[in-house]
Amino acid sequence: MLERSLVVSAPGKVILHGEHAVVHGKVALAVALDLRTFLRLRPGGGGSVTVRLPGVGVAASWDTPRLRALRSGFSADFDESKSPSVEQLDTLREFAGITAESSAPESLATLAFLYMCLAISAKYGDVPSVDIIVWSELPTGAGLGSSAAYSVCLAAALLTACGAIACPLAEGESTARWTEEELSLINSWAFQGERVIHGNPSGVDNAVGTWGGALRYQSGKITSLKRVPTLRILLTNTKVPRSTKVLVAGVKDKILKFPAIMNPVLDSISAISQECQSVLEAMPGNPSPEYYPVLEELFDINQHHLNVMGVGHPSLDRLCHVTASHGLHSKLTGAGGGGCGITLLRPDTSPLAVEAAKRDLCACGFECWETNIGAPGVTLHSSSSLKADVLHALSMS
Amino acid sequence: MLERSLVVSAPGKVILHGEHAVVHGKVALAVALDLRTFLRLRPGGGGSVTVRLPGVGVAASWDTPRLRALRSGFSADFDESKSPSVEQLDTLREFAGITAESSAPESLATLAFLYMCLAISAKYGDVPSVDIIVWSELPTGAGLGSSAAYSVCLAAALLTACGAIACPLAEGESTARWTEEELSLINSWAFQGERVIHGNPSGVDNAVGTWGGALRYQSGKITSLKRVPTLRILLTNTKVPRSTKVLVAGVKDKILKFPAIMNPVLDSISAISQECQSVLEAMPGNPSPEYYPVLEELFDINQHHLNVMGVGHPSLDRLCHVTASHGLHSKLTGAGGGGCGITLLRPDTSPLAVEAAKRDLCACGFECWETNIGAPGVTLHSSSSLKADVLHALSMS
Repeated sequence: MLERSLVVSAPGKVILHGEHAVVHGKVALAVALDLRTFLRLRPGGGGSVTVRLPGVGVAASWDTPRLRALRSGFSADFDESKSPSVEQLDTLREFAGITAESSAPESLATLAFLYMCLAISAKYGDVPSVDIIVWSELPTGAGLGSSAAYSVCLAAALLTACGAIACPLAEGESTARWTEEELSLINSWAFQGERVIHGNPSGVDNAVGTWGGALRYQSGKITSLKRVPTLRILLTNTKVPRSTKVLVAGVKDKILKFPAIMNPVLDSISAISQECQSVLEAMPGNPSPEYYPVLEELFDINQHHLNVMGVGHPSLDRLCHVTASHGLHSKLTGAGGGGCGITLLRPDTSPLAVEAAKRDLCACGFECWETNIGAPGVTLHSSSSLKADVLHALSMS
Repeated sequence: MLERSLVVSAPGKVILHGEHAVVHGKVALAVALDLRTFLRLRPGGGGSVTVRLPGVGVAASWDTPRLRALRSGFSADFDESKSPSVEQLDTLREFAGITAESSAPESLATLAFLYMCLAISAKYGDVPSVDIIVWSELPTGAGLGSSAAYSVCLAAALLTACGAIACPLAEGESTARWTEEELSLINSWAFQGERVIHGNPSGVDNAVGTWGGALRYQSGKITSLKRVPTLRILLTNTKVPRSTKVLVAGVKDKILKFPAIMNPVLDSISAISQECQSVLEAMPGNPSPEYYPVLEELFDINQHHLNVMGVGHPSLDRLCHVTASHGLHSKLTGAGGGGCGITLLRPDTSPLAVEAAKRDLCACGFECWETNIGAPGVTLHSSSSLKADVLHALSMS
């Protein structure tokens, strides 16, 4: 069926504005982060499906006949519109030797793989004998959508392998993307993977991983921004662990305690998201440097608001302080209370200033990536177009 | 007429919440600061009125007949309800040898003194031959209402000296205050002094100096809070100079630039003032320690909002950071952009923690006072009740 290797990639995501406020019905903007997850799928010779995720320590192989037998044991209600059932997941856990309580990344990644592999082959025909390796530039558990990038890559590769969608990469091309319709199918199946991993995800992360660019999210409604620029950023992981659940509950408590004080702050954050959307949509048509001070000001204001909501952290204050000392503007991104911060770089921010900021951030014990937002969504790559480190990681045997 | 010496004092003021937002019709809370201006008035023997303000370098004396002649040259429209006219002020400037452009503190203090002295004697009968000395614990030009404390002291002393109000201090009492009606008269005349000094003052500072405690101010309406507790604070002067006019204009620009983002911030600040008012009014009847964390949280939130409005300053960030490292909560007070910050102390904040915070603030080059807010308004003192430093300052000859 599939005659050549595929390499697909999907971006991570960061919340640009609206984290926490989105829980209370306000607008959030999520953007694709150009730290990507790469998946290489090779036709396998041995009548088996092999999956390796060296980053999370998964290396598993299942005989195709065993998978087929497992699938036929299910009632035939695999569908991308239905949530994976508890019974399905229990059966898969038992098959893979995963304990019911395990929420370790390797368990969830294996479970999502098995679910998608079986469900897709039940619907579109057997996934052939393949050998899959996944490697990511994204740290896991940092709120950067690494599980969604994984699910998007899996959906794209498996749907392509069993012929449900085309393989749009023509000979000689370095990258290619799917049609809107195919992307919708990839997104639906990636959402199933996210459901296996997270239970009740919002769907934002897999949408960003699929379409890239920037998305607006409000009250369950996801819309893609028309055109967005690619913006240079620093992404910094303070490595301070935090519980998103506890932080979300803290914000709710604060709103209940001081409604007249806090509700206007949520309104202001929603207006920041909307103002930012306007600026992003205006930038590609008019690449004027005057937009950058506005984006920076919105970062600063929102960072203060997030502190008002009680989701700041001394490590994030430090991050903002350090980058401010280099003339750069930062805000936390995601849950806060530690975790990651995002720093905007202007097109003309000097490499020296960036290096100095990175050095100072690393000196705080933070991990720091210089990357872009507004990155493309799920993409097919020719091997020759891949960077050496990616090629190296995917060649691991 | 007046047979014995008087010593009166009036407190300075700080804005607790609502600075800047008040310019846009929102609620502000101003509280009396227990850094006071003291005025000693002694019956003079020499048929002259003498005034000395060693703090601003004023030492002037005018013969009573010359003052009387000056007064009779005016049309008789001195009234506490009418603004001092340009002609009146020009005549007084010429009389005192003050150039028209001079806005030096000593010029304005002299002008206010002459205006009040003439106007009060025109209305209530000659101010007798007196010798006045004024000394203040308040720094000038720091937004702490030093000019209003001066005007309130002058109004109280001059009105008492010419018999317009009683001298309520009975033999053996250490302090006394005037009746509500007399306080209203003091406040009206103090407002005239403020008008001479500031042109178009809000009237908040002289009201705080007169009534003490805490006042609510919105859209020109000033109301005294019923009962307020006395709260311990640190008041810190960063000594960073700033222009209130420029800061107010900056906030206005920001509101015009981002109305949907900034107007909710103003609403939130107004709600903070109102929440703080509720807490302050509840505290005297129920002295529970649980109110302090709320007051601290309101400080923190408002400080973030003031940063959103662009009136923060690195020196104020430093002030907040230093006090936070001692478990204390601070916000800027007044115009911002430098100037003063206020730090709340709990009743049980240890003297060691306070000393450590003061030491660290001084090490930043800041000036720091440990004092109270919610202090009494204009007060008459017996000499024996005065602290040694005040007595010493007022005994200067």
